[in-house]
Amino acid sequence: MGEEEEQQKHEVNFGAPRKFAKSFKSDLKETFLPDDPFRSYKNESKIVQAKKTVQYFFPIFEWLPRYNLKLFWADLLAGITIASLAIPQGISYAKLAQIPPIIGLYSSFVPPLIYAVFGSSKDLAIGTVASCSLLFPAIIGRVVPPTNDPSLYLHLVYTATFFAGVLQAGLGIFRLGFLVDFLSHSTILGFMTGTAIIIALQQFKAMFGLTKFTTHTDVVSVLHAIFAQFHQWQWRPAVMGFVFLAFLIFTRHLKKKNPKLFWVPAISPMVVVVVGALFVYFTKANFQTVGDLKKGLNPISIHYLNFNSKYLSSTVQAGVITGILSLAEGIAIGRSFATMRNYQTDGNKEMTAIGLMNIVGSFTSCYLATGPFSKTAVNNSAGCKTAMSNVVMALCMMLTLLFIAPLFSYTPLVALSALIISAMLGLIAHEEIYHLLQVDKFDFIIAVSAVLGITFVSMDVGLGISVGLSILRALLYVARPSICKLGNIPNTKFYRDMHQYPCATRVKDVLILQLGSPLYFSNSSYIRERIFRWIEEEQGNQHEVHYLVLDMGGSTNIDTSGIEMFTELKKMVEKRGVKIMLANPRLEVTEKLILSGFIDDIGKKSVFLSIDDAVAASKFKLIEDFNSKHYSERVVSNAADKDLSDAQVVNMEEGNGSSENKKGGDSQ
Amino acid sequence: MGEEEEQQKHEVNFGAPRKFAKSFKSDLKETFLPDDPFRSYKNESKIVQAKKTVQYFFPIFEWLPRYNLKLFWADLLAGITIASLAIPQGISYAKLAQIPPIIGLYSSFVPPLIYAVFGSSKDLAIGTVASCSLLFPAIIGRVVPPTNDPSLYLHLVYTATFFAGVLQAGLGIFRLGFLVDFLSHSTILGFMTGTAIIIALQQFKAMFGLTKFTTHTDVVSVLHAIFAQFHQWQWRPAVMGFVFLAFLIFTRHLKKKNPKLFWVPAISPMVVVVVGALFVYFTKANFQTVGDLKKGLNPISIHYLNFNSKYLSSTVQAGVITGILSLAEGIAIGRSFATMRNYQTDGNKEMTAIGLMNIVGSFTSCYLATGPFSKTAVNNSAGCKTAMSNVVMALCMMLTLLFIAPLFSYTPLVALSALIISAMLGLIAHEEIYHLLQVDKFDFIIAVSAVLGITFVSMDVGLGISVGLSILRALLYVARPSICKLGNIPNTKFYRDMHQYPCATRVKDVLILQLGSPLYFSNSSYIRERIFRWIEEEQGNQHEVHYLVLDMGGSTNIDTSGIEMFTELKKMVEKRGVKIMLANPRLEVTEKLILSGFIDDIGKKSVFLSIDDAVAASKFKLIEDFNSKHYSERVVSNAADKDLSDAQVVNMEEGNGSSENKKGGDSQ
Repeated sequence: MGEEEEQQKHEVNFGAPRKFAKSFKSDLKETFLPDDPFRSYKNESKIVQAKKTVQYFFPIFEWLPRYNLKLFWADLLAGITIASLAIPQGISYAKLAQIPPIIGLYSSFVPPLIYAVFGSSKDLAIGTVASCSLLFPAIIGRVVPPTNDPSLYLHLVYTATFFAGVLQAGLGIFRLGFLVDFLSHSTILGFMTGTAIIIALQQFKAMFGLTKFTTHTDVVSVLHAIFAQFHQWQWRPAVMGFVFLAFLIFTRHLKKKNPKLFWVPAISPMVVVVVGALFVYFTKANFQTVGDLKKGLNPISIHYLNFNSKYLSSTVQAGVITGILSLAEGIAIGRSFATMRNYQTDGNKEMTAIGLMNIVGSFTSCYLATGPFSKTAVNNSAGCKTAMSNVVMALCMMLTLLFIAPLFSYTPLVALSALIISAMLGLIAHEEIYHLLQVDKFDFIIAVSAVLGITFVSMDVGLGISVGLSILRALLYVARPSICKLGNIPNTKFYRDMHQYPCATRVKDVLILQLGSPLYFSNSSYIRERIFRWIEEEQGNQHEVHYLVLDMGGSTNIDTSGIEMFTELKKMVEKRGVKIMLANPRLEVTEKLILSGFIDDIGKKSVFLSIDDAVAASKFKLIEDFNSKHYSERVVSNAADKDLSDAQVVNMEEGNGSSENKKGGDSQ
Repeated sequence: MGEEEEQQKHEVNFGAPRKFAKSFKSDLKETFLPDDPFRSYKNESKIVQAKKTVQYFFPIFEWLPRYNLKLFWADLLAGITIASLAIPQGISYAKLAQIPPIIGLYSSFVPPLIYAVFGSSKDLAIGTVASCSLLFPAIIGRVVPPTNDPSLYLHLVYTATFFAGVLQAGLGIFRLGFLVDFLSHSTILGFMTGTAIIIALQQFKAMFGLTKFTTHTDVVSVLHAIFAQFHQWQWRPAVMGFVFLAFLIFTRHLKKKNPKLFWVPAISPMVVVVVGALFVYFTKANFQTVGDLKKGLNPISIHYLNFNSKYLSSTVQAGVITGILSLAEGIAIGRSFATMRNYQTDGNKEMTAIGLMNIVGSFTSCYLATGPFSKTAVNNSAGCKTAMSNVVMALCMMLTLLFIAPLFSYTPLVALSALIISAMLGLIAHEEIYHLLQVDKFDFIIAVSAVLGITFVSMDVGLGISVGLSILRALLYVARPSICKLGNIPNTKFYRDMHQYPCATRVKDVLILQLGSPLYFSNSSYIRERIFRWIEEEQGNQHEVHYLVLDMGGSTNIDTSGIEMFTELKKMVEKRGVKIMLANPRLEVTEKLILSGFIDDIGKKSVFLSIDDAVAASKFKLIEDFNSKHYSERVVSNAADKDLSDAQVVNMEEGNGSSENKKGGDSQ
């Protein structure tokens, strides 16, 4: 293989920049269609394409044709199990949301049916969730307290559910799923824990049979309200509540010991509700009960949606916050179970499905539903095979609504409170948060700030602080990229962080820095000043620096501020007698540096495929400088000349032969 | 050199993680003290340290002891030149801000003196700026229209200036200078251009001697106001205005032809003002004039600061927006001239200096000042040497205020309008914006959105859209990092983007992906799904994939969501028969992967110093798998064993001898 051909292969590819339309299209595709949903369409007939399109938009057509009786038996069992959980959960979360308990039952009838048609998860069980239920009184209750005008308040909850659904479906349809990614794992952990704490505390109102209570949700107000009324505590409901709570915790403990007994905690809420209701019915005890559950299916509520500008800001706010939170929960949980069972869910499709079910739900007297963790886990343990288990649950709910709903009106509130406390205890993620402390301090701070903000101020403040810190961190990363000084790992051609690899040795007369981030407006002045400081430090430490090699392999992009930074940096370091060399610039960066003329400014021969090439070239140039006794501008300007550069390569290898041989030249 | 020692040097450094306190301290230092201001303090005596501390906080003590007569002559000339520019600019920008013109003169007296003590730039000339001047009526005028209650409006402008100063000084003292970096180059270009257009258009009110005018600033309203009053146009002031404008443009043109004539455009504004005033004085023409300029120095205004909650939100808003904008302008301009003259300015010190001068200014009847481009350029051209030129200018202003201020009251408004239009024409950066279009489309969109938003809606809307787009871009980068498939550059040990280097060849059975970003919550699900898609594509294209090598050199950090992503990814790809290998993880990432147990999960022997090592190891493992006919978990779990691993290295080199020799083994 000739030396000339050899040299060619080592060069940086300075090909013509891609057309804007082409790179723009590929950027757009990566942003909005990262999963490339149409890739399986290529090379298929029209009929297959049409069939796949229908299946894409209605995943039910993917699994229904292959559905059989064996699958149905599994789904039937799972569906009945989650229905027995859905009834008590529906009633108790509706109480949390301060809406009539029957709405909670309605919300487990219509949304699961819609989800079964559009959803792509096989495990997700649809129902209401505690955290979002509490957010409605916290946000809408500020404008219309639920006790003042219950029906207006309920209509605003429908409206917020509608907005949440529109937002969720919109995010899915416009493929903006990545916005949900901005709720970090640690924010969600902190939010769940903080909310679980305040929701559990709220339950002591019913546990002690108190009639007056604070409207605040923070720990201090709630504890004050509980203990200030010590003399109004009613002991009979409290005893019943703690017995139920102990029973629920015991059944969960049972399951942990023997996973086969998963159905015990799954039906225990139903047991608590039924036992409680029977107890009240037969003893005629003077307990607060759920009261007033009418027979009948969901009435139409589309005409109740209230877009009055007076309430619009709070309904939109409630819709956006609950919409994003419930989406994050539903998608994360769907994905976890899909990974466990080795299939894929489609995030954007899931969003559309969850959004559609909430839109339809808001038309049919339902409030916000998603795929809660507890219910989904039970569904999975009960052996569900497809989304058919949601259909079964919906049918069970229908039968309940049509025939036996009034029976639940005797359910004592204290039974529901025991249920909620027991559920919330499972959501307090103190172990995970402690794990964050060990692995990543900043994530720990994000989670703890959510917990403290929620427990001591309010839910939206806690969430806001935590999301704000997460985004600040992302921005800080962009503003303060890590730059490190590289040294040669002895006897190799590799250059690594000298801090990480103490064995790495400094290359004489050359400062090698790795830029580990895109070069954007937000970090360009930092990078310029930081690099300049490296040079000053090196030169201050009696190390000569003639060449500055910038490893650009980690810089995925550059903007005009970044390019300007390079131009300024070049001027600054040249005044200190230092020349800039670039190693391994990536595609987008190379294109823009060419377009802006910076590559021509430093010369194409100052851009190298690898750090090793740059170091080798710098040695050659130093020797040449030494030979001509003074720094010759001619050499640098002529370096672009092909003939001379080939000669350089030869010279270089001869000149450094002894050290090169040790390393094993890669061109022989 | 023994083989064992050789092998050791190639290993990834799995040293114990740094103490949290240590890494946290170093992170804090990089974030807040990137310039490491105290590095010159080491190894100095207490007295020198005390002296350096004083000099650090009061840069005047750095240059004043070495000040001499020669420097003073240069600064005297420059100071007088910028004073002759400061008078007309002060009056006209005060008119823009709709405050009494004398305030503009006051603002060129106190702030420059403060800056001279605290500032670190030698070129920055202090004065008021057009864009911020227009922002006060745009924001504060909404609550208190300047025509309704001029004195309350003026007090609110002082208050906003105070807030701006506090913000600026606070950013400097708390070393939060990087927040200013979030105003990107393209945002500033667009903001300048858009503002210049609307400010220039505003001037046609005075040019045509109109008395009624719109309060809106957008192009449509202003043009409508101008042309609807066609019959009220006064031709005499218009003729004078256009003559002056032509003169000003001509003088600027002169300077372009012959840079030595820089003083011609510098004093021409003064000529225009004086000629205009004399004309009005002698002809008694019925022109609108500045009117009412009293003799005397700045009166104290501290008692006028108005913190009434009724106005607080608008004064804070005006303070924050003008504060950040003027800071960005002052710092960027100071830095540009420092680079030109090869000295360094300290961003945080500059902010503190600008902030302090505005705080003191708001106590002494001044409004927002910074270092405007036009004045600074004139200062530099006039040969200023130190901040003393600001002191000279301030003394000139003092003499003006004490003795000749009333003379300027005859200045016709039309002369000021000609001045402003001429200044604004220089700020319209159409060429730079066109350059953005060529180099970076997204930057172009950011700049154009600022221009359109400002000219067709309002200044704050335009600015908001543009900043929002810039930040969205930064966040999108974090959310959609670029991942690329690497191939081997023939006859080297280097692996490069196959898209960028078409000559790079795919490594058999191995998929090598480069992750070019930190692994954060905002991108972890994207990365997981994107990598999984690569594997599906490869396997769909009849390429076997047994190993997934992830090049982590570009990933500077990872959070818990990122770690979780790796754990999930590992499960997902293992189900497809693919093993994960990591190449060249950086310090922070390695630490966190160890702490979280992921490294133990995949085995330390699956982490390599370079891609080449990983590829070599994968080949060895494939051969071993082939020999043992089925995949043996034993090998992988035992791979952590040192003896076996050494054996592996030997085997590897023997087994692949023929291909390794071509590449030049690096361990002989």
